[in-house]
Parts: sequence; C-alpha cells; structure tokens
Amino acid sequence: MPLINEHYLKLAAGYLFPEIGRRVAAFTAAHPELAPRVIRCGVGDVTEPLPEAAIAAMHAGVEELARRESFRGYGPATGHAFVLEAICEADFRSRGLPIQPDEIFLSDGSKPDASAFLEILAAGTPGHGGNRIAVCDPVYPVYVDNNVMQGNTGPAIPGGGYEGIIYLPATPENGFVPEPPATPVDVAFLCFPNNPTGAMIDRPRLERWVKWALEHDALICWDAAYEAYVRDPALPRSVYEVPGADRCAVEFRSFSKNGGFTGVRAGYTVVPKAVEGRTASGERVPLHRLWSRRWATCSNGVSWPVQRGVAALCTPEGRAQMQRLVDFYMGNAAVLRQACVAQGLRTWGGEHAPYVWVECPPGLGSWEAFDRLLHEAQLVVTPGAGFGRHGEGFFRISAFNSRAAVEEAGRRLSVLRG
Amino acid sequence: MPLINEHYLKLAAGYLFPEIGRRVAAFTAAHPELAPRVIRCGVGDVTEPLPEAAIAAMHAGVEELARRESFRGYGPATGHAFVLEAICEADFRSRGLPIQPDEIFLSDGSKPDASAFLEILAAGTPGHGGNRIAVCDPVYPVYVDNNVMQGNTGPAIPGGGYEGIIYLPATPENGFVPEPPATPVDVAFLCFPNNPTGAMIDRPRLERWVKWALEHDALICWDAAYEAYVRDPALPRSVYEVPGADRCAVEFRSFSKNGGFTGVRAGYTVVPKAVEGRTASGERVPLHRLWSRRWATCSNGVSWPVQRGVAALCTPEGRAQMQRLVDFYMGNAAVLRQACVAQGLRTWGGEHAPYVWVECPPGLGSWEAFDRLLHEAQLVVTPGAGFGRHGEGFFRISAFNSRAAVEEAGRRLSVLRG
Repeated sequence: MPLINEHYLKLAAGYLFPEIGRRVAAFTAAHPELAPRVIRCGVGDVTEPLPEAAIAAMHAGVEELARRESFRGYGPATGHAFVLEAICEADFRSRGLPIQPDEIFLSDGSKPDASAFLEILAAGTPGHGGNRIAVCDPVYPVYVDNNVMQGNTGPAIPGGGYEGIIYLPATPENGFVPEPPATPVDVAFLCFPNNPTGAMIDRPRLERWVKWALEHDALICWDAAYEAYVRDPALPRSVYEVPGADRCAVEFRSFSKNGGFTGVRAGYTVVPKAVEGRTASGERVPLHRLWSRRWATCSNGVSWPVQRGVAALCTPEGRAQMQRLVDFYMGNAAVLRQACVAQGLRTWGGEHAPYVWVECPPGLGSWEAFDRLLHEAQLVVTPGAGFGRHGEGFFRISAFNSRAAVEEAGRRLSVLRG
Repeated sequence: MPLINEHYLKLAAGYLFPEIGRRVAAFTAAHPELAPRVIRCGVGDVTEPLPEAAIAAMHAGVEELARRESFRGYGPATGHAFVLEAICEADFRSRGLPIQPDEIFLSDGSKPDASAFLEILAAGTPGHGGNRIAVCDPVYPVYVDNNVMQGNTGPAIPGGGYEGIIYLPATPENGFVPEPPATPVDVAFLCFPNNPTGAMIDRPRLERWVKWALEHDALICWDAAYEAYVRDPALPRSVYEVPGADRCAVEFRSFSKNGGFTGVRAGYTVVPKAVEGRTASGERVPLHRLWSRRWATCSNGVSWPVQRGVAALCTPEGRAQMQRLVDFYMGNAAVLRQACVAQGLRTWGGEHAPYVWVECPPGLGSWEAFDRLLHEAQLVVTPGAGFGRHGEGFFRISAFNSRAAVEEAGRRLSVLRG
C-alpha cells in the first residue's frame, strides 16, 4: 500500500476560505429566509465584469480555435512569447525595471505559483535538509500551509502556527510591516500591499529588506498580487524597484485583482536569472534553471484564450480599463474605512489595498466577531485568526463588492457595538 | 542562501519534447529553404479545430464574464458542480461505472495532474520513506521525471533510467503490455491505449492487474488520456470497468486528444473515496481526503470559459463531434500504419491509439532514425529512446496532422530504406 505524504496530517484545520464557506452555508441552511440578505466581504473575490479589452481578446482567442488556419495546440510551457513580451513591456520595461521576458513565467494564478515554487527548493525542516522559512504573521495561509505540506515545518503549535517556521509579527506597533529578522533566514515571504492587513511598505523599509537579503544570501518571495492598488507613486509596486532585488528576489503577480481574472485564472512569477540557490555542498544554481525545468515537465501552459486576454490587459486600452476597476474597488474601500471609523473601530488598510483591517471590539475574538456579523447582520468578513496568531483580535473586510453592498455592509457593522 | 531541491540535478537531460523542438529549430535555422517542407508527427499535438459545441460554450462563457449578473469569480477548486456532474454522466454513470461526481477533480490537464498527484504520496526512495514505483518501459517521460524531481529515485543509470524505479519492459514479445511484477510494488503507472507504443490492453490482462493490486495493496495510477481511440467495445476504456478497481486505482483523463484541448487545457483525475494509502505507522488514509486538501490549498480551479467548454464536450452533441475528430485522426493512423508496412518496417499500434510504433531499420538507433528523417525527409517523429531504454530501436509517429500531411509523411518514410 502506498505511503502517503504524512505532512498533510499536520495541517491544523481546513483551509480558511472553505471553512468560512462552510459556516455561511450552515447559517443559510438554518435560516433560509435570511440567505438573500447575506453580503459577502469575506473571500477577496471580484464582482465586476471583465475589462472590455479582455472580453474581446478572449472571444477572438476562442474563434481562432474554431478554424484550422489559426488553431493553437500546445504552446510553450511558460507562456507564448507575445504574452511574455506584453507583460514585460507593461509591468517592467516601461518602468525601467531590469526584467526580461524570459524571466517571466505565465501561470494560472499566483496561488498555484506560490505552492509550486516550493517544489524547486529543498524540502525538510531547518537543520534536516530544509530551509529556514520566515513569514509575516498574520499571513495569507497558502504560504504556511504549503510549507507544512512540503515537510518544511514541525507539528502545529496549540494556539496557532507551526514549529520550525519563523513568524514575523505584523502589529499596530510596526504598522503591520515587520523589519528583517535578526535570526538567520533562507527564504522570506513578503506581500505588499498586504493581504490580509492592507498595509503597505514604503521604499526605505523595502530597501532595508533587499539589503538584508543580499547581505545574508536570503531569498525574498515577493507577492505583489495587489500592486495595482498602490495609489502613491512613491511607494514600490514591484520589488525590482529597489536595485539589487533582481539578485535576491522572485515576484508573484496576479491578474485576479486588477483584471478581475479570479475566475479566468492567470498570473505570473518573475524569476530573474541572477537569483541563485545552493546545493548542500555549496554549489550555486540559478533558480531560473530549476523553475524552467519544473514548467517544462509539469505543465503545458495556460489556456490559449486566457493568454489572449492577458495580452489585452497589457495594452494601453486594457490598462486604462483595469485602472477604472481598481478605482471602483478603492472607492468601496474608502466607504468601508469610513464606516469602521464611524463605528469607533480601530481601522487600518484600505488606502493602498482592497482590504480593510479592523480591530475587534474589546472582549470579542475574531471568530466571535465573524459569527456575530454573520448571525446578527448577515455580513461575511474574514476572521483575523484565520491568518495567524497575530491576526487574533482583528478581522478583514474585502472591498470587492458592489457600491450598494459595501455601503450596506458599513451600516451593518453597527451590530459590533454590542 | 536557500537550499535547492537537488533531485532536479539528477535529471539526465532536457524533457524530451523541448529537445526535439531544439533539434528541429537548429535544422530549420541551418536550412531555412527546407523549413516549409517540415512535417511534424513528433509531439502528439492535435491540428483540427475544436468541436463546434465547445466553441459555442466557450464564447458563451466569455460573454458571461462581460456582465455583472452572470459574472463568475472563484469557483470550487476542483470544478463547478455542473461540470463534474456532466463528466460523471458522460464518462461513468451512463456506462454503469461506480464513480460519483465528487470523486472527479477537474484540472488543467493530465500532465499537471500526473505531476501533482505525487505530492500527496510520501517522497523518498524505497526503504528510505518512499514508495516502490513501477513504470512501463518505454513510458511517457513525465511519470519518471516527476518521480526523480520528487526524490523518489536514485541517480540516472548510464544508458537510460534511474536507480530505484522498477521498469516493466514493454516489448514485441509481450505485445507491449507488461504483466504485473513479481517484485513488491506500491504504485504502478499504467497507460492504455499506450503512449508511446500505441498498444492496447485487453480485459483479461487488466483484470490480472486489478487482482494483483488488490492482493498486494498496490495503487494503480491509470492514464486513460487516449481512451477515446479504443475502437473495439470489448476493450476497457476505463480502469473502473474492472470490478474492484475503485478500491485500488486512480484514473487520469484528458480532453486534449478527444476534444482537441491541447491548447485549451483541461483534464481530470478520478480518486474514488475507497482508495487508501497508509502512514509509516500503518494508519489507513483515504487519498481522496489528501487530494481534496491539495486542491483547496494549491489551486483556484480551471478557467470559467474552459469549464463551460468541458461541459459542452460531455453533451450528446459534443460527444458526437469529438467522435468525428477521433475518427479523422484514426483514419490518419491507418494511413501511417499502411505506409510503414509498405516500407517493410515492423509496425505496431495505430489501431486503438493515435500513435504508430515502428522498429528502426537494422543498424539504426532511434535518435539516428530521428535525425535521418529530419535531415533527409524533413519528417519529425519521436525517437523511442526518449521514452526509455526499451524504446531504443523504435520511433513513434503521431497521427495528429492533416490527411495530406500524413500521406506525404508515409511517402517520406522511404528514406529509411537507404
């Protein structure tokens, strides 16, 4: 009988968002008359139609598959050249950043990428063949769960977290932006604009992270899925805005939150050729070589109509349409921020991110706040504890919804007053 | 500095099909005047337009994303319920096979699935925490390479193969259908209709495999990507046609070769709830539980318009259109078979598979045959040695091309006479 990957059995509970879905489903099953009243500001899922440019390009892509002359079968595993070129021009070259098209790997999203990326790194706990992994706390759960499943951690710790992971507390005191750690780290996962706190890092602090990584030969895994929400041009939208980052950082990007591709599925990972890992015996190996091989062996690339859609998002027309979507959601974020403040809740985020991070009223845990909002106001948020130990006492509200729903959500927060 | 996954460094060479692409590109660069003459029967990539039902459904799926009322964001990680229901009805329930919709996991193809599936099994070599893995030889290289990358093998063996893998020779003597091994095995990868040999297993031999798996508590990973090409209704198109297989087998399916989805990307894996693995201490764990968790954590599912396309392929109309595509390619296979026989080449396959498997003329290795066909006839085939040690001395011709190209390919095989 096959031996299973026992690391899966360490996972403390179901993945956060299915658990939220389960609770909402149980509530609406028990109270079907209240089901239509439910407002979902939990999962960060977009609600508005796709940019017209993407729709037109995807229709064209489908039509190309209807005729032999324009039919497309297998493409390059990491994306068609014209798509990588379009991404490079739109996101990097036009902004003077030192990234080449063949350092961009198109995928079906940054959640799969963040998972798959661990495959090219050593598996095991620190001191037993593995890497010293650091994450912020609270953190997007995918980073932690994947490290658990890969065998990079010890067992779950009562109260949250896993042995072997280095947690960097993100708190009101540090503005939810941890400084580089003093303890040795091989791989640090960072996400700004941050999910879940909505915090944004400024350039001096990012420079400290890059300097730290270069000095300590550490790898930064930079999640820029929400870069489109940065409103202040002085703030870094890509890690590569800091010189030297192309020697110590990979960057995950997504078309989910700017282009509305949560259901279409596309993202990409940047792996510059100069970023290296090492063997146990000290030989340096470009991660680009390993990641290329991973894609050649494990994938046949992204759906053709989707690739056409991605290229369309990178045109000036597509970019302008994405900007309008982002502006709309940021208008929602402002409404939510104001509502929270009006309710007397301590509130962060929502200024360069589609997430508002709210402190629970005194005495209320974050799952308690979740349940009260669900049961008394039919408002679905995300409990901070689902993102880690330091998320306890907070909840996240997503700005992805209609304006009317967000305004109503703001009013319903009043049930937290007691 | 991060430690890398050193198992990647064991990989003997580039993945087979990129290597073929490299040689073809080098040839056409050196002889640009011959480039238009090249006929590609190497990679098994379809050439004909998609079924009309899929085109219409994918257009409709794109259009739904253009309007707020019908917009779709994140779906269930393993596929929308109506798609799983459609697949179950078309491929299993209507044929009396004991598979439920929630045992079907929609993906972006069976190559990614065959890779990802190893994630839920223990990593390591046999006797060092890992499983005893058996593959046929020759074999679709993805199975072997993924096991290497996962750390389930020792180093490469000069002349082909990796230490620690159990190779089951598929030869003219056994009709390219190995019997279950006498040595202990935990996981056996089987593919019928076979890639690359085009061989098909009959029911009595499949029954011996299922009986063996049940008796030895082994797992069969059954690749049925080419099941649509089975012409004889007495031959098994799904492993689940044999009673008991739903306790010892998972099945990989693809829409690439029946629906022409090589560029659209869709497939699925069947993991029946009764199939189990075990922990090192002997606890039995349903693989369904682990595979479900893998999908929840690592994926956000398949692109919405693609899911619409898959559901359309499962309708009676879509199935009839797929059958016409399959019939067309099987007509090509017959042309190629006859041409090989006419050239005096020993030939197998092409009767229940889109691949014809040909013995090289005496004295010619399979890469030599590849190079001669490329250089002297501008015909691209796949050298058997790329599929394993027992593929040496053979080459594969793919029937995926236009009728005219296939007829011309048949004529050009004459260069092998000289």
